[in-house]
Amino acid sequence: MKLKAKLLDIQAGGRRIAILDDKTASSIGVHSSDRVEIAHNNKHLIAIVNIANNFPQNYIGLYQEISEKLGIKEKEFVDVKHAERPEALHYVQSKIRGERLRENEIRAIVKDVVERHLSDVEISSFLTALYIHGLSMDEIEALSKAMIETGSILSLNKTPILDKHSIGGVPGDKTSILIVPIIAAAGFFIPKTSSRAITSPAGTADRVEVLCPVNLTIDEIKDVVIKTKGCLVWGGALDLAPADDIFIQVEYPLAIDPLLLPSIMSKKKAIGATHLIIDIPTGRGAKIKTIGEAEAVAYDFIDLGRRLGINVECAVTFGEQPIGYAIGPALEAKEALSAIMRDGLLDLKEKAANLAGILLEMVGIKNGKQTAEYILKSGKAERKLREIIEAQGGNPKILPEDIKIGDKKAEIKAGKHGQILWINNKYIAQIAREAGAPKDKGAGVKLQVKLGEYIKKEATLFEIYAERTTKLEAAIELATKLQPIGLSRKLENRMIMDRIPKPIKHKKTFTLER
Amino acid sequence: MKLKAKLLDIQAGGRRIAILDDKTASSIGVHSSDRVEIAHNNKHLIAIVNIANNFPQNYIGLYQEISEKLGIKEKEFVDVKHAERPEALHYVQSKIRGERLRENEIRAIVKDVVERHLSDVEISSFLTALYIHGLSMDEIEALSKAMIETGSILSLNKTPILDKHSIGGVPGDKTSILIVPIIAAAGFFIPKTSSRAITSPAGTADRVEVLCPVNLTIDEIKDVVIKTKGCLVWGGALDLAPADDIFIQVEYPLAIDPLLLPSIMSKKKAIGATHLIIDIPTGRGAKIKTIGEAEAVAYDFIDLGRRLGINVECAVTFGEQPIGYAIGPALEAKEALSAIMRDGLLDLKEKAANLAGILLEMVGIKNGKQTAEYILKSGKAERKLREIIEAQGGNPKILPEDIKIGDKKAEIKAGKHGQILWINNKYIAQIAREAGAPKDKGAGVKLQVKLGEYIKKEATLFEIYAERTTKLEAAIELATKLQPIGLSRKLENRMIMDRIPKPIKHKKTFTLER
Repeated sequence: MKLKAKLLDIQAGGRRIAILDDKTASSIGVHSSDRVEIAHNNKHLIAIVNIANNFPQNYIGLYQEISEKLGIKEKEFVDVKHAERPEALHYVQSKIRGERLRENEIRAIVKDVVERHLSDVEISSFLTALYIHGLSMDEIEALSKAMIETGSILSLNKTPILDKHSIGGVPGDKTSILIVPIIAAAGFFIPKTSSRAITSPAGTADRVEVLCPVNLTIDEIKDVVIKTKGCLVWGGALDLAPADDIFIQVEYPLAIDPLLLPSIMSKKKAIGATHLIIDIPTGRGAKIKTIGEAEAVAYDFIDLGRRLGINVECAVTFGEQPIGYAIGPALEAKEALSAIMRDGLLDLKEKAANLAGILLEMVGIKNGKQTAEYILKSGKAERKLREIIEAQGGNPKILPEDIKIGDKKAEIKAGKHGQILWINNKYIAQIAREAGAPKDKGAGVKLQVKLGEYIKKEATLFEIYAERTTKLEAAIELATKLQPIGLSRKLENRMIMDRIPKPIKHKKTFTLER
Repeated sequence: MKLKAKLLDIQAGGRRIAILDDKTASSIGVHSSDRVEIAHNNKHLIAIVNIANNFPQNYIGLYQEISEKLGIKEKEFVDVKHAERPEALHYVQSKIRGERLRENEIRAIVKDVVERHLSDVEISSFLTALYIHGLSMDEIEALSKAMIETGSILSLNKTPILDKHSIGGVPGDKTSILIVPIIAAAGFFIPKTSSRAITSPAGTADRVEVLCPVNLTIDEIKDVVIKTKGCLVWGGALDLAPADDIFIQVEYPLAIDPLLLPSIMSKKKAIGATHLIIDIPTGRGAKIKTIGEAEAVAYDFIDLGRRLGINVECAVTFGEQPIGYAIGPALEAKEALSAIMRDGLLDLKEKAANLAGILLEMVGIKNGKQTAEYILKSGKAERKLREIIEAQGGNPKILPEDIKIGDKKAEIKAGKHGQILWINNKYIAQIAREAGAPKDKGAGVKLQVKLGEYIKKEATLFEIYAERTTKLEAAIELATKLQPIGLSRKLENRMIMDRIPKPIKHKKTFTLER
């Protein structure tokens, strides 16, 4: 059927959606959520129908994704006909019924996700079914491979290629900013891609962006890595696993994450990793609560690595408090730069040297941790970081003092003396976000205490930094409500650890950082 | 934050969606799928954010649902701020984890569905979780009550009010067109609302629309029922259970139906039903395959009825072939009118008299079936049907010959002589739809044989009617492929009943008729 195009001067977030009024839809024999094939200029594509009651009859409303792809101009006639539902939808239905999917079925689903043949409603149902029924390791492998096949790759044609990943959940984890220079300075390739914060106060890409640009193309990344052996870039726009980008978008409001393993591993394979260390922060307040859970996840990563041809080792790390003291992009960049230049910040350096050490041992270096520590202490890591900053287009001479921190500041003080018993990761993250992080790069939280320390009454527990007064005030209010740091004169005085239901309920959801 | 409104000259299918570009979204602190509160002229509402990369900065794109509700004009400034996720989303997450929901939690979900605070992605996940984990009867009751509370009701202030429902799945089921006049002629109120076809060739509303208008308002329905005691109207636009309308829209592409019971029963309660007969067609090719399954469903309906204050009885009916011979709106209207006027059509009349009989016995009439048969045979039912047709705005003198059937016609003949062994409901429905039903009211299929009959080679198995030649040809082609009627000289010659995988695969999905 010929319909007149009405172009909507707007994108639909990558989706391929066509608008029809009820009568026109009925003439074509389609309902809302059905598919139509739209043809124009010898090109055609499949779109998903949305019904708008007051839309003019015999018109088809097209978002830019469609009109640009087919080169359709306003009021041109296009051919529109009913299209069958994609085969992949049957496999989604199989998964809803709890069946195991075969490789070709998973490949069909991933392909149709990337080509936008499946709607968000269908993808949501698929992800929910995956979450509830779980995935076999064969399904995880097939999903990973299909995600890699449908994405871009970084081909360095070098081997070995080392990489590091943290499954996240602990604020202030700027370890990668130390590990990448250590590994590169040791002479190994480490093309590190990182994510930006979605629900946390800072992702590694947000932190590094304070030091230099992170939004590089694949070709630019290649140049940086050939020159310096390492990089610290944002992976989000590289299209390494476009299916995963869509899955993450749909998962976000649901706060479920059934594809953790394929999501991480497909991107590692796409940059050509041969040796990978995975950091699994563990403890109360981390994603993984116990060492038992951490080990189960670790063996899954190792198994999947073997299936994909990546040598994987995992480190279960202490996740009950932030890494270092700083939380927020600029605060953390400053802290990482200080750490690589100067003495101090023992927990951050200890973690970085340990993880870098495991990686080095995986490629045959003896005494990995000591080697990493030497590279740090000797200034080689700092020089390498500055090389990378320069190669990515930043100022290689940058000093910690050059990094601008929010000029609005508040101190949160202890109401009594005692020992620090816990630091609530989630609350610290919420306070940093309330102060403006990650958007306001200078905003965040700076701890003045860590677990186990003894402090006096009126000593500062942490500082809040913000770029705007209203944000600072909101963060102070939240900090007062949440009381993220617990201390006690004597342990016996704090036998009541929690109260249920909580007197104050704060409803932000923190997940899905990759 | 103040943003300039950019009005999208289009509806979003009832959804409340606001478009922001990436930077503006980040200034407000929201991502795609997060909520914003939009305020203007002392009114405000919650919208769900979609990100469009090329959208102008500091603008907010508003579909008509929002701009009309708040009275926003092009380029006016509106207040936009981040809004928390609705509480209901937490209960959706509980259901995903497999928890039982409490009444207040279900009420919160249904309210937020109706008020469009939950996105399609979130509703899809909820429905998938319900489908996989199942619902307890307490949850079903709470869902039904919440759906009733959030919908309109028909208050006749009469008692008893009788009603009939079929869970569907059998083509050609025009039984309601006979039952409503029988019950009304017997002196009882029966305000029957019906659905239109979604994936079938005709819903009762489509059939009745051939005889008279069915798209009445609640007030018009009241007038018709006060005057005639019955009605045969379309329930879809009455807003009896708006939550269910939204659920059905989301379920449609997924072909899952976890809310069958609350969906049906909430609408019956909303029209004030006190006595309800539910028809459960059963057999190969029906929704329910065995009498055991049918009984389980029946007891659930009866239990739910008790909880909602509706006296429910169920009838398990033979569902292995179409009811009567005609499939398609006009063909069925014609057949129903003939049946109520003349002799013949025994299976249709037998079914109608039985179901009407049970209903009559439920309100104290003895020998219900005989009473129903007498009302049919005496012409009282016909006179009542004509009264209802007139009250709804149709021609009360309409004769079967007045009903226009598609003038393009084909006959599908038997390739050999033998006995009719099966009639595939799904295939017959698909062929009728391919011929143009329900949109082309005159299109459809007319059977010339029923199960068990002996026929000669070259005898007509069924006729296909269409309004357009292309449709007729497509239907003939499909009929040839599908071979919807099976016959055999001797049973022993057809020991192979099916072949897997099927040589021809046809992928239309048939569910969700309510």
